[in-house]
Amino acid sequence: MSKGLPKRSEDYSQWYNELVKRADLAENSAVRGCMVIKPYGYSIWEKMQQQLDKMFKDTGHSNAYFPLFIPKSYLSKEASHVEGFAKECAVVTHYRLKNDEGGKGVIVDPEAKLEEELIVRPTSETVIWSTYRNWIQSYRDLPLKVNQWANVVRWEMRTRLFLRTAEFLWQEGHTAHATREEAIEETELMMNIYAQFAEEYMGMPVVKGIKTASERFAGAVETYCIEALMQDGKALQAGTSHFLGQNFANAFDVKFATKEGGLEHVWGTSWGVSTRLMGALIMAHSDDNGLVLPPKLAPIQVVIVPIFRSEEELQAVEEKAHEIMDKLKPLGISVHFDHRDTHKPGWKFAEYELKGVPLRIAMGPRDLANNTIEIARRDTLSKEMVNLAEVEIGTYITEKLEEIQATIYQKALQFRQENTTSVDTWEEFQKVLDGKGGFVSAHWDGTPETEEKIKEQTKATIRCIPLDQVKEDGKCVLTGNPSVGRVLFAKAY
Amino acid sequence: MSKGLPKRSEDYSQWYNELVKRADLAENSAVRGCMVIKPYGYSIWEKMQQQLDKMFKDTGHSNAYFPLFIPKSYLSKEASHVEGFAKECAVVTHYRLKNDEGGKGVIVDPEAKLEEELIVRPTSETVIWSTYRNWIQSYRDLPLKVNQWANVVRWEMRTRLFLRTAEFLWQEGHTAHATREEAIEETELMMNIYAQFAEEYMGMPVVKGIKTASERFAGAVETYCIEALMQDGKALQAGTSHFLGQNFANAFDVKFATKEGGLEHVWGTSWGVSTRLMGALIMAHSDDNGLVLPPKLAPIQVVIVPIFRSEEELQAVEEKAHEIMDKLKPLGISVHFDHRDTHKPGWKFAEYELKGVPLRIAMGPRDLANNTIEIARRDTLSKEMVNLAEVEIGTYITEKLEEIQATIYQKALQFRQENTTSVDTWEEFQKVLDGKGGFVSAHWDGTPETEEKIKEQTKATIRCIPLDQVKEDGKCVLTGNPSVGRVLFAKAY
Ligand SMILES: [Zn+2]
Ligand SMILES: [Zn+2]
Repeated sequence: MSKGLPKRSEDYSQWYNELVKRADLAENSAVRGCMVIKPYGYSIWEKMQQQLDKMFKDTGHSNAYFPLFIPKSYLSKEASHVEGFAKECAVVTHYRLKNDEGGKGVIVDPEAKLEEELIVRPTSETVIWSTYRNWIQSYRDLPLKVNQWANVVRWEMRTRLFLRTAEFLWQEGHTAHATREEAIEETELMMNIYAQFAEEYMGMPVVKGIKTASERFAGAVETYCIEALMQDGKALQAGTSHFLGQNFANAFDVKFATKEGGLEHVWGTSWGVSTRLMGALIMAHSDDNGLVLPPKLAPIQVVIVPIFRSEEELQAVEEKAHEIMDKLKPLGISVHFDHRDTHKPGWKFAEYELKGVPLRIAMGPRDLANNTIEIARRDTLSKEMVNLAEVEIGTYITEKLEEIQATIYQKALQFRQENTTSVDTWEEFQKVLDGKGGFVSAHWDGTPETEEKIKEQTKATIRCIPLDQVKEDGKCVLTGNPSVGRVLFAKAY
Repeated sequence: MSKGLPKRSEDYSQWYNELVKRADLAENSAVRGCMVIKPYGYSIWEKMQQQLDKMFKDTGHSNAYFPLFIPKSYLSKEASHVEGFAKECAVVTHYRLKNDEGGKGVIVDPEAKLEEELIVRPTSETVIWSTYRNWIQSYRDLPLKVNQWANVVRWEMRTRLFLRTAEFLWQEGHTAHATREEAIEETELMMNIYAQFAEEYMGMPVVKGIKTASERFAGAVETYCIEALMQDGKALQAGTSHFLGQNFANAFDVKFATKEGGLEHVWGTSWGVSTRLMGALIMAHSDDNGLVLPPKLAPIQVVIVPIFRSEEELQAVEEKAHEIMDKLKPLGISVHFDHRDTHKPGWKFAEYELKGVPLRIAMGPRDLANNTIEIARRDTLSKEMVNLAEVEIGTYITEKLEEIQATIYQKALQFRQENTTSVDTWEEFQKVLDGKGGFVSAHWDGTPETEEKIKEQTKATIRCIPLDQVKEDGKCVLTGNPSVGRVLFAKAY
């Protein structure tokens, strides 16, 4: 099954593509750049959604739904927003097809041309702020904290499953506040929620920081982000949270009557994570045998594979397996018994390894006789014989799953630490980026020109100005000009 | 708050439109025919989704996600499908905008024209069956039971919030089977699940039946449906489940190797319900005071409104309220305490009535002294004084909610019974349809011509051939030709 999965060390990119397909996560569709998320991949995304949705609701957000289409003119209302988003997008120009008179299928009906073209949303600030104008009159209507789970489309020329697709799934939060302070607080809160989700659920350590002006969201005053490091030494932006200032309130004329009787523009934020997180999850932990899933996001946490030669043996094993399952299920552990007699145990072992199931239990007639089971950990690939008389299986499995969750995170954290290099010279800077890659912590003179030159020469971008940046005098790694602190560079997805 | 909600008896249509807006369920967007589903409305939809999703998974279905866009040529592959769906749809012809050289915003870049136009999915059979071709090789890959939660677009000229919108949200199940029998079984299973959901959760009785050929899904061999009756005597199709035969397997060449070594086309089904259910829910139960929600779908099941004149009184009431909430929440009852001092109790009463909260508890200083609360039921508008020393409040509320759920259903059922009329003459047929409306059970000669004539003359369509139809000889209500059983006619949404 996993035979032939390319090795990470030989072709990381090919390893990723193959893994995504073979583990039944996603595949390319017939429509350029649009993916099909397969049931197994989607079930992981659902686990992500459930947890994020809970975190959003626990912090006072509600879900809503806004139109897929945005009138072309809306995009132009916020000056920098249109620069960022009006370029590569899907444009609806007609609303009807008709039978081809030549008899060959259907053609676009030229008479059904829209007066104003509609854009398939690349992000929903414009349509949402035009709605907020009617929802917000007074300070009593604030804060307004809404989230939307939706599909969006950005016409990408070079696509990769999950990482960069023309259509992708995401959530986009859009909030409105009475004060600048409150909006900034919200922006930071959501960045922190993303970081917490990435670390506690995805087992993926992230750096929290602020984007430079050139990497900022089109229309934002400040963009906060979380950045993760993948196993090939490239960074991946895993989530962003934008302080919009009053930009969209100005563009769409959203004002509120203050407690004191004044009339002011509203302060806004927006924030989002997408199916890109699936790509991050895959690349952060998986190995040459396949996917490695953190237990908290694994659709199947424990699989029981029976070893049997006859129907009677299968039945005996299944009976025992059901005893175990009856103890695990009430604990909220998702456990699957693989009944199939169409595949051999060895084939199943490889398949569940490929699919990243955290714990695999194997049981055969001899185990029944000895009251034992064999437990294999996906993350370490280690095996252990467990005597069921000696452990309370529910507690044992719960602890193992927690251990795996912690180990996966620690491993990724250690990897990141080993691959974050502080450099002070341009030579060293280039050497690290050409070599092991990873995050490079270096001084930068703060100008977009230098940022751009560094990008041209090394392909590395400033991933962020870390929130925990130490203020220290230094010299820019490229120009030698004064700097106030180190920023994080990396090549990135 | 509910002041000025039009009365159902005076203008049912206006009553519906106003209710949807004032109860914060949905509103029209700036994009023609596309709605904004507001947070309160969306939270009801989420409850529907959760329950349906659970029912789908409990019956072995998995979720997945397929592209928003469908290549134009795909639509033409299934002959009757293209007739039904290729007409009014959103067509993407370009993938880029550019700055207008005249300096006025952005225009469509004529150089970025797609070679083949893309259709925004009106339904996904074509794109999904083209994918299934790769997923299905052998009988071991069957059955394949996939569901998708998605947005779809059908360019409607006359739209109404929830009932008929250009973009709407839905789920669409698409399954593939080895045999005709199994596919029919699946089609019926899903119709039954929809019926169970409508009756047990929405409190809305439905008739299960089969569509006539002219009302059949474009591409289906047989369409099963559930039909509900609204308070104005019009029917509403609440869900459909299609037996596709081998139509899409033929069109997209989806074959499987049988156990016996043959090669056969796969049998298919598809089934869906949409945000239209929101319209049905609203119209089935609500009254002139606003929404009436069945407890199982109410985002807030119990609201506690404090009666107070001072901050101290509020605090005392809140303390007691929290005692009650602490007993209700562990039972899974969603309860909300309305802290606001910006609105008077009377205003809040009207608001929660408008929003359909099933139970309202009012508590003031006198209640604290007497250890009582006042409980008002939304469905009957009746009030009751409850002595907290005499009841176990958790049990009491649980039972009340169950009672409301049952009462709402019974009331709707009784309404339907009273508004289902068996008629045998054309005169009577017209009279009933011109008068009280409702379902008309009548003989029909089985021809599409008669069906069409009846529609032209009365605007009534055959809602379905009920599954519990009694086979009996009769004469067609219009033509007098022989009939084998009664079918259900109604004017419909
Ligand atoms: Zn079993
Ligand atoms: Zn409180």
